Amino acid sequence: MIESNIIYNDKKDCQIINFENINFKLVSGLSIQHLKIAFKTFGELNADKTNAILICHALTGDQYVTGKNPITNKDGWWSRMVGPNKPIDTNIFFVISSNVLGGCAGSTGPKERNPKTNKPYGGNFPSITIKDMVKAQTYLIDSLKIKKLFSVIGGSMGAMQALQWSIDYPERIETIIHIAGALKHSTQNIAFNEVGRQAIMNDPLWLNGNYHLENKVPERGLSVARMIGHITYLSEDAMHRKFGRKLQSRDIISFGFDADFQIESYLRYQGRSFVERFDANSYLYLTRAMDYFDHSDSYQKSIEFSYKPNNHIRYLIISFTSDWLFPTNENKTIVETLNYLSKQVSFIEIETDKGHDSFLLDEPELDFVTKGFLENNKVLDK
Amino acid sequence: MIESNIIYNDKKDCQIINFENINFKLVSGLSIQHLKIAFKTFGELNADKTNAILICHALTGDQYVTGKNPITNKDGWWSRMVGPNKPIDTNIFFVISSNVLGGCAGSTGPKERNPKTNKPYGGNFPSITIKDMVKAQTYLIDSLKIKKLFSVIGGSMGAMQALQWSIDYPERIETIIHIAGALKHSTQNIAFNEVGRQAIMNDPLWLNGNYHLENKVPERGLSVARMIGHITYLSEDAMHRKFGRKLQSRDIISFGFDADFQIESYLRYQGRSFVERFDANSYLYLTRAMDYFDHSDSYQKSIEFSYKPNNHIRYLIISFTSDWLFPTNENKTIVETLNYLSKQVSFIEIETDKGHDSFLLDEPELDFVTKGFLENNKVLDK
Repeated sequence: MIESNIIYNDKKDCQIINFENINFKLVSGLSIQHLKIAFKTFGELNADKTNAILICHALTGDQYVTGKNPITNKDGWWSRMVGPNKPIDTNIFFVISSNVLGGCAGSTGPKERNPKTNKPYGGNFPSITIKDMVKAQTYLIDSLKIKKLFSVIGGSMGAMQALQWSIDYPERIETIIHIAGALKHSTQNIAFNEVGRQAIMNDPLWLNGNYHLENKVPERGLSVARMIGHITYLSEDAMHRKFGRKLQSRDIISFGFDADFQIESYLRYQGRSFVERFDANSYLYLTRAMDYFDHSDSYQKSIEFSYKPNNHIRYLIISFTSDWLFPTNENKTIVETLNYLSKQVSFIEIETDKGHDSFLLDEPELDFVTKGFLENNKVLDK
Repeated sequence: MIESNIIYNDKKDCQIINFENINFKLVSGLSIQHLKIAFKTFGELNADKTNAILICHALTGDQYVTGKNPITNKDGWWSRMVGPNKPIDTNIFFVISSNVLGGCAGSTGPKERNPKTNKPYGGNFPSITIKDMVKAQTYLIDSLKIKKLFSVIGGSMGAMQALQWSIDYPERIETIIHIAGALKHSTQNIAFNEVGRQAIMNDPLWLNGNYHLENKVPERGLSVARMIGHITYLSEDAMHRKFGRKLQSRDIISFGFDADFQIESYLRYQGRSFVERFDANSYLYLTRAMDYFDHSDSYQKSIEFSYKPNNHIRYLIISFTSDWLFPTNENKTIVETLNYLSKQVSFIEIETDKGHDSFLLDEPELDFVTKGFLENNKVLDK
């Protein structure tokens, strides 16, 4: 077990754990010498340390899962789900949420200082994978002296991390809630990510990733990337229901390129507000990690090496009918694989028109199933 | 009937018809003083002028519908469909194809010279609509002394034009083949167009549309816009079948931002080659015209004013199962409307996994139905 040198409270209302001179080896073969993880915890760890839940965030999430996010001054991204008496009940569970490796909310990532050069990594940050993110999380869990997590929970890129946990560290998890993920990132998803990356890398202020050194930000490229992403998070039906062809503060069309339609204003706003809180390089590195995620090729290997006999994980796989980014059939492939491996797996497809973003939105069925699955499994444990 | 001053052969292997001092009034209220239309014809107009077919191109198409396109040095965009003994048989029909108003292959558009300033219009080009494009086409048809078109045919933005013809000039058409269109541009389609436009307008070389004056081209923005568009033209299944997660000339991933996956190289290539043949401002103006297209609001008006008793058009509406840009249900709305209006309408949904682009690709059912519909209607006419 590797332990940290320091845990300190960060001015950004979270904790930072620091591992120095550790030679953290990445899948790519490169290494990181110093590893910093920004995290938050909610609730109390019980005496036998059996009530810890790790929540893994999606592409643009962070450790501020609930309560006030000091960066945006808004509620945390899963405030409706995590807290006292909420579906992930912090009266019962000790919730840990950390910013992923490669992120931009305090963990080691491209905008952080490279100890070798004393400058931000920028474009020199090494490529990372979901496996690397999860390995970094084990350092944090080790330091918190937790041997076994009661659950690992995540949606989207968070679901990828949960799945990776079950493959690499099955003996360290009781349950997993995997929401709107896949065994592999699909061709279309790679395509959308690639367009977003091209938008960023084509921005003249990107400067090969070294914009921090020149005090520039490739805001326009990042904003376009976010707009593309945002379309894929919604469903056509939800977009139509919410915006239709409604005009923006005008009775008539402008016959120009201002935002005539509400959907245009909405996307522009999404782009603009995103650049205030997110780092363009992190967007590149994290989307790349998602693209590289593929356990469909290593299916046989998974059987032989990963789904070892000591995997007694109880899985809950959740998908949404209108999610076209991580559609039900992709989630079902995981269910099929787990059934084939004779693992304990539950599956629910939730009927909703809210698209991929459903896992972040008001979905009573999601709440109901999550709460029940966690609390009833907790009873089984006793 | 307005007639042209000049029809001349253009060095780009097409004809140009020129209307000077005509005060061509646009839907926006603005006017164009000189109108130039670049067009091509194939086959022979018969003596009673009853065998003329107008083919309307999609967003990035042009007048080079068949034969060699001198700009790209490739076959015309519908070479497989138009020609002697082909589904649109030029042994039987006289085919006319013109570059749309606002386009960039010789017709009046943002890259052409504004006669008032003697400089390219650029960002000062007036906003145009599908209705304006169709009106411009009537000038061409008038000049060719054709009173009634045997058919107006188009896919995607071309389908919008065909539908607009039937609303504005029903007495001038025998038949329409409307492929993969809609009564209105959907919210999601507006959203994708808006992201493409933002990519272009955020390119520092766009210069408020006046890049031509500075001999610049917003290539990067246009290329990203094309990449976004291209994803929407394919289906997830077709993309998966064609590319999957196959790597590009490498056995292993690069752990970087080069094009590791074939889908990435493919999209980058699509972007790169597009900027060689298309004008960024045209992309803005034409996508805007598509966004403004909406006959769902004016449904009642359509009944009262447009679908007049003199509309005896025989309609063929075609959709593709895997088209998510102009899905079957959008096309069916037109069929329903036409049935409600007791018009002669045929409808076919073609089973294919090739997505929206199916209308440009090898689809034997499309050939079969198109050929039969045209030739059997021609017999009916006699």
